[in-house]
Amino acid sequence: MTRPKSSFAGELLKGASQVFFMENSLTGILFFVAIAFASYASGVWATTIGAAIGVVVATLTARLLDCDEKSVASGLFGFNGILVGAALPTFIAASPQLWAYVVVGAATSTVVTAAFGATLTGKWGIPGSTGPFVLTGWLMVAGAYSFGGLHVTGDAPKLATDYVQGLAPIPQPIELVQIFFRNIGQVYLLGSEISGAIILLGIFIASVPAGLAAAAGSLVAMVVSIVMGADPTLVSQGLYGFSPVLTALAVGVVFLKTSPKVVIYALLATVTTVFVQGALDVIVAPAGVPSFTAPYVLTMYLFIAPKKLMAPHPHRPVAGHIVGHEHRQTGARTEQPRDQPGPSRV
Amino acid sequence: MTRPKSSFAGELLKGASQVFFMENSLTGILFFVAIAFASYASGVWATTIGAAIGVVVATLTARLLDCDEKSVASGLFGFNGILVGAALPTFIAASPQLWAYVVVGAATSTVVTAAFGATLTGKWGIPGSTGPFVLTGWLMVAGAYSFGGLHVTGDAPKLATDYVQGLAPIPQPIELVQIFFRNIGQVYLLGSEISGAIILLGIFIASVPAGLAAAAGSLVAMVVSIVMGADPTLVSQGLYGFSPVLTALAVGVVFLKTSPKVVIYALLATVTTVFVQGALDVIVAPAGVPSFTAPYVLTMYLFIAPKKLMAPHPHRPVAGHIVGHEHRQTGARTEQPRDQPGPSRV
Amino acid sequence: MTRPKSSFAGELLKGASQVFFMENSLTGILFFVAIAFASYASGVWATTIGAAIGVVVATLTARLLDCDEKSVASGLFGFNGILVGAALPTFIAASPQLWAYVVVGAATSTVVTAAFGATLTGKWGIPGSTGPFVLTGWLMVAGAYSFGGLHVTGDAPKLATDYVQGLAPIPQPIELVQIFFRNIGQVYLLGSEISGAIILLGIFIASVPAGLAAAAGSLVAMVVSIVMGADPTLVSQGLYGFSPVLTALAVGVVFLKTSPKVVIYALLATVTTVFVQGALDVIVAPAGVPSFTAPYVLTMYLFIAPKKLMAPHPHRPVAGHIVGHEHRQTGARTEQPRDQPGPSRV
Repeated sequence: MTRPKSSFAGELLKGASQVFFMENSLTGILFFVAIAFASYASGVWATTIGAAIGVVVATLTARLLDCDEKSVASGLFGFNGILVGAALPTFIAASPQLWAYVVVGAATSTVVTAAFGATLTGKWGIPGSTGPFVLTGWLMVAGAYSFGGLHVTGDAPKLATDYVQGLAPIPQPIELVQIFFRNIGQVYLLGSEISGAIILLGIFIASVPAGLAAAAGSLVAMVVSIVMGADPTLVSQGLYGFSPVLTALAVGVVFLKTSPKVVIYALLATVTTVFVQGALDVIVAPAGVPSFTAPYVLTMYLFIAPKKLMAPHPHRPVAGHIVGHEHRQTGARTEQPRDQPGPSRV
Repeated sequence: MTRPKSSFAGELLKGASQVFFMENSLTGILFFVAIAFASYASGVWATTIGAAIGVVVATLTARLLDCDEKSVASGLFGFNGILVGAALPTFIAASPQLWAYVVVGAATSTVVTAAFGATLTGKWGIPGSTGPFVLTGWLMVAGAYSFGGLHVTGDAPKLATDYVQGLAPIPQPIELVQIFFRNIGQVYLLGSEISGAIILLGIFIASVPAGLAAAAGSLVAMVVSIVMGADPTLVSQGLYGFSPVLTALAVGVVFLKTSPKVVIYALLATVTTVFVQGALDVIVAPAGVPSFTAPYVLTMYLFIAPKKLMAPHPHRPVAGHIVGHEHRQTGARTEQPRDQPGPSRV
Repeated sequence: MTRPKSSFAGELLKGASQVFFMENSLTGILFFVAIAFASYASGVWATTIGAAIGVVVATLTARLLDCDEKSVASGLFGFNGILVGAALPTFIAASPQLWAYVVVGAATSTVVTAAFGATLTGKWGIPGSTGPFVLTGWLMVAGAYSFGGLHVTGDAPKLATDYVQGLAPIPQPIELVQIFFRNIGQVYLLGSEISGAIILLGIFIASVPAGLAAAAGSLVAMVVSIVMGADPTLVSQGLYGFSPVLTALAVGVVFLKTSPKVVIYALLATVTTVFVQGALDVIVAPAGVPSFTAPYVLTMYLFIAPKKLMAPHPHRPVAGHIVGHEHRQTGARTEQPRDQPGPSRV
């Protein structure tokens, strides 16, 4: 297969765009603009610098490890690195150790991406997606509490409490618009609605169906989180919407072929993601880490894993067990061909 | 294969009976009677209503997703849904949002069941069993803390403490009988010994060996938990026995062919389940969720996974690694055939 | 294959040596000497007795379960048992229930080793290594809080705090030497630098490259943990070094063929292990359990999993999904050969 050699800059920009499943340099440029705008607005440039370091280090590491060339060129080894690079300075104060941490974290994210590719994808057919970012990010942020050279800002290991404020008042229309765009910006850990709008524009440039799915995911998340009475502060910051946005995109457009049935399936997945967001916020609180995109990752894995013709295990004996009665009879294996992962699996 | 079309009601009842690995409508009826009796005794009908909604929604979802027809007809897509439906109203106060939650949770339990079927069962030969219920239940109960429209009753995120009361006094004979039956009833989250007795009757109707295994599991759990000095309040409610009951059934009768060796193996698994019950109660406490049947699920997975002729990885190089020395020689694969998931392993 | 029948004592000693990936009876003897020396120095013999019980019970269980004979003879079913046996009396006060616990835990560690062998190794090509010890150990120590007959000493479920003491003063040279050897001793949960030196001698006797890798891992861990400002008390006890020592050995020498590239890869893995140590200390604190060798296990799994020619999942539809559009066309599978875990993916 002849294929024009991609430029390194192109790989980095595509890596940025792959956070939303796109492979488009212009989209990647817009995403970097969105990140930079949020830094400009807040005056904190560490996240933009971290994102740039992250995607460079992750992509270089993939080249050094001779990872699948086409995948590297498509940016598939860069998008977890850019998220690690953006996330660590968001939660850890700048220090010399932080930058060493970002470099090691981004390099490790590439190894984790390759590990997920070899197992979850290669053996089970489930896309790793941003799972490597979530795992690497959790380990790095939790680890930061243990090192005097790193200081976690704005979070701490704690126990969740029951949020019993009852139903929150429905936000004003202008707030609803802000939430709609922040839900998208927070995928890149950006609380700015302007950044969210730039990102949505970037998605539409690459794919109109993807843009529609992202918008629909944001709307569904907003409605469900408000109706369920989620903490209005979190809803307002877009923190209940970014994972559902990714779920709507992934399940509705990217990993399944869109059809009426898939739309309903993606709707169920998106609503479930809002609930899983609430759950993971509680479950990871004692570790003092944010849930990152874990609500999307977990829900997407569960909704993409099922395969046609697969059945759950019937409540009958498994074959070939170490203490199974049949292990002295070689003919026993053929009894349950459907349960057996192929005749030569032992 | 010609097969009489099953009735929808039959699928629901078989779904209820599959919680104890049975496929028997009469057993399913008795299980519903046991659930209803506990509601009648406590005056709280939400659990019975939830169980009914759960099995209906989960089974319908399986039909809509075109899941394996034979499995749906056997109730294999219903038993996780009935448990989700019974569990959520047990731990979350009734509200409009709760019922929406039950419906979404039951539908999602079917997707999770299909996901486990495609991966854990399809690739590793391990039955999913009530794992989908545990995962869905944990996410839904933990999520409830985050939503103002849902209120968790009788539990909260907390840290476990060391239970150092020394050995508990041995309960009176009448209490031992209560514990024996409650250990069985609690599989359906029912603290009533009458309900437990009805359920045990239902198991015996479907299978005498299964009934004997369930009874043996309950006895072993009772003895071990008392000898180890577990909290008498929990022991008395049957909360140390329901997972071991399932383990005894699953390992001793259902997933392995009963033999003297299997009985000893199942005994080790049952004792281990009591210890894992103690462990998971501590581990999940900070998330504010019950351990559900996770002690059974984890122990059963570990005891069913081993296959004849499988060896642990020797402490020698793995093959085909991205940075392995041998990756430029195509002949390297044949060096360690035992370590390699060979070409026909899909 | 004719093979001299191994002696049971030889299996036990090789089991001890396999903790450091060696298969050498003399090395095993030295490791037992190191354990006994630490007991002699502290006056607490429960750990030595527990280690002896652990390796005997685990190896016997493997024989009773007809596990792969060559593996049993190589000690591959003993090393997790010896660690369980050494660990439980280290964290739980002696009592009749403790010894029952050690026996059941060691027997179960063999089942868990077989389970990891059948799944992680057999299907994904990842060595289980001390993963079964970590899982069994966590469950047993966490479970101990729930039983009045068991008392956990020196640990309790708690939330981690942010360690913000800034950079620690660099230890004196004599302390650095102590840390260097304790990093190795702590693999066997031994805080004695003499024990660590004996163990290192045992490794060198079996393999000079392995000894060099262990020493290098200890040095790297010492430097990184000090530079990052880890708690000096923990660093001094060798608690930041034992997992990196295993990672350096496993990734640099045992599971990959040593080469300049593998050395750099192992260096990244070793540094990452120090960070993961900090992370897991925080993450498992609420369960009241030590992290054991989990930082090594998790990092090693991630660094050994990647396989040559594996790519992450592209952001395109997966094949064969239950609600995928193509499920009515049987030819659909061939459309996306790269997404399919086909025969050429190994």
